Amino acid sequence: MSGGGLVVALSGGVGGAKLALGLARVLPAEELLVVANTGDDFEHLGLAISPDLDTLMYALAGLDNPETGWGRRGETWSFMEALGELGGETWFRLGDRDLATHVERTRRLRAGETLSQVTAAFCRRLGVGPRLLPMSDDRVRTRLHTEEGWLDFQDWFVRRRCRPAVRAIAFDGAPAARPQPEVMAALRGGGLRAVVICPSNPLISVEPILALPGLREAIRGCGAPVVAVSPIIGGEAVKGPTAKMLREFGILPSAAAVARRYRDLLDGYVMDEADAAEAAAAGVPVTLARTRMVTLADREALARAVLAAADSLRRAT
Amino acid sequence: MSGGGLVVALSGGVGGAKLALGLARVLPAEELLVVANTGDDFEHLGLAISPDLDTLMYALAGLDNPETGWGRRGETWSFMEALGELGGETWFRLGDRDLATHVERTRRLRAGETLSQVTAAFCRRLGVGPRLLPMSDDRVRTRLHTEEGWLDFQDWFVRRRCRPAVRAIAFDGAPAARPQPEVMAALRGGGLRAVVICPSNPLISVEPILALPGLREAIRGCGAPVVAVSPIIGGEAVKGPTAKMLREFGILPSAAAVARRYRDLLDGYVMDEADAAEAAAAGVPVTLARTRMVTLADREALARAVLAAADSLRRAT
Repeated sequence: MSGGGLVVALSGGVGGAKLALGLARVLPAEELLVVANTGDDFEHLGLAISPDLDTLMYALAGLDNPETGWGRRGETWSFMEALGELGGETWFRLGDRDLATHVERTRRLRAGETLSQVTAAFCRRLGVGPRLLPMSDDRVRTRLHTEEGWLDFQDWFVRRRCRPAVRAIAFDGAPAARPQPEVMAALRGGGLRAVVICPSNPLISVEPILALPGLREAIRGCGAPVVAVSPIIGGEAVKGPTAKMLREFGILPSAAAVARRYRDLLDGYVMDEADAAEAAAAGVPVTLARTRMVTLADREALARAVLAAADSLRRAT
Repeated sequence: MSGGGLVVALSGGVGGAKLALGLARVLPAEELLVVANTGDDFEHLGLAISPDLDTLMYALAGLDNPETGWGRRGETWSFMEALGELGGETWFRLGDRDLATHVERTRRLRAGETLSQVTAAFCRRLGVGPRLLPMSDDRVRTRLHTEEGWLDFQDWFVRRRCRPAVRAIAFDGAPAARPQPEVMAALRGGGLRAVVICPSNPLISVEPILALPGLREAIRGCGAPVVAVSPIIGGEAVKGPTAKMLREFGILPSAAAVARRYRDLLDGYVMDEADAAEAAAAGVPVTLARTRMVTLADREALARAVLAAADSLRRAT
């Protein structure tokens, strides 16, 4: 790749993690910083659970479960089975291996470590090269105002399977939360090659990150190209409730609609070749690419396309 | 069985649990109350772990691991493996199924339930008929003064494999702990058939129970025969550090020596046929039996022998 310099990637879980892995495979480890949404973190069974952070960590470590998109590969489920026998709550599935992450993280957080420190320690142990950081070490909790009232994120997402229509979204704690300092330093410092907004749900995976005080401004002022990748292909999300939620917000789900959602931030946008007809509606320079990431080669190819788009924007300005 | 009336059995882990199961198999469920030592309970990885209580619960539920004597049968170890990868502490082995007990117990204790309530709920779910209760809902912690200084129980027992010689034993918290109220009510109420001290380590499994304020006196004054079963056969413990510890306390490990340790409490004592020569030295009426419990039939036979011994003492008085 041409370029050099640091790439900061903002990401939620499944879809974002695929591109994050692609970036990790085409960039030297020290040139990638992945920022994870922690708005859907929650306490469950007394454990501190960080779904997006873990999906990213497992993906970058090559431990992710390709069938589910979350959790670990080669997982066993004895804990969950035994918990059910004891009458415990089983609606949120925690695999036996995955559980070690939550138990050890909870222990370390209680002992006074920050989520960033715990994540860094885990990544070191698991051989993750690029930096992976939570968006903040402070508590932010995405809550959804639905037709059934306010619901905690996982309650809506997992227990209610995204069924209740969403009317409003709140990021509790965001106004008082401090963005992860290394992320802010990276955005404000020199040597930034690009900011990449991964193909994650804008409403619940990316906007919690952007809701942190100063973060949106830091991205706008970073001086490097900001490029987002569409999570929508042909009017539908590859996975998850993105299209359904956009509709509930009165937004026709389209690649261009997501670009407009980020309009104050973007210098460029990568959308699928299938959505070529919408390119003009995005409002920013568009790169067409194959954005459906099935194989590892797909992830790498999209990562290269995104970096090329960013680099061309830099040369253009 | 002749008799009828309630049998209260005091027990530690492995050896005691074998007899407790034998008693559970020969008595109607409502005629047995098993009291578990909680002196070796501890907090580990942020989880509330009650080793003796769980060994008893799993044994009574038919879920115990016959190979190890602790933990659950059909266990898997994915959690422990993953925890090791993350750099977590792996010296105390927690199986995936067993872990559900600790996670759910910890959650319920934090939510304000007592250890007795949590145990009762688990036993109900697992189909345990007899009542199983912790000796106290308050925190008691067995600590050992060894040649290497004071050690927490599990630190000495598991991590140091009982190697450091023990000079003194303390039951931290015992003076202020309240014995489990149902246990006290059973000892003080009418309808008691016998108190059985199971073949557990007297120093670290039974004496923490007896150290609770009022409990020793309640047993002495209960009016029913009190019978102990020797954990020593032919000068050695069937399992665990009992013989080694007795030696370190200057006590020649023998069946009779254990009887003398309980002398203020006992009306009768059951020792192995192999120790017949020591019967006179026990200081109380002795019943000889086969105390090595390998099969389920052994457990039942010993339970019957213990109850018969108690019933004969009742008739004698």
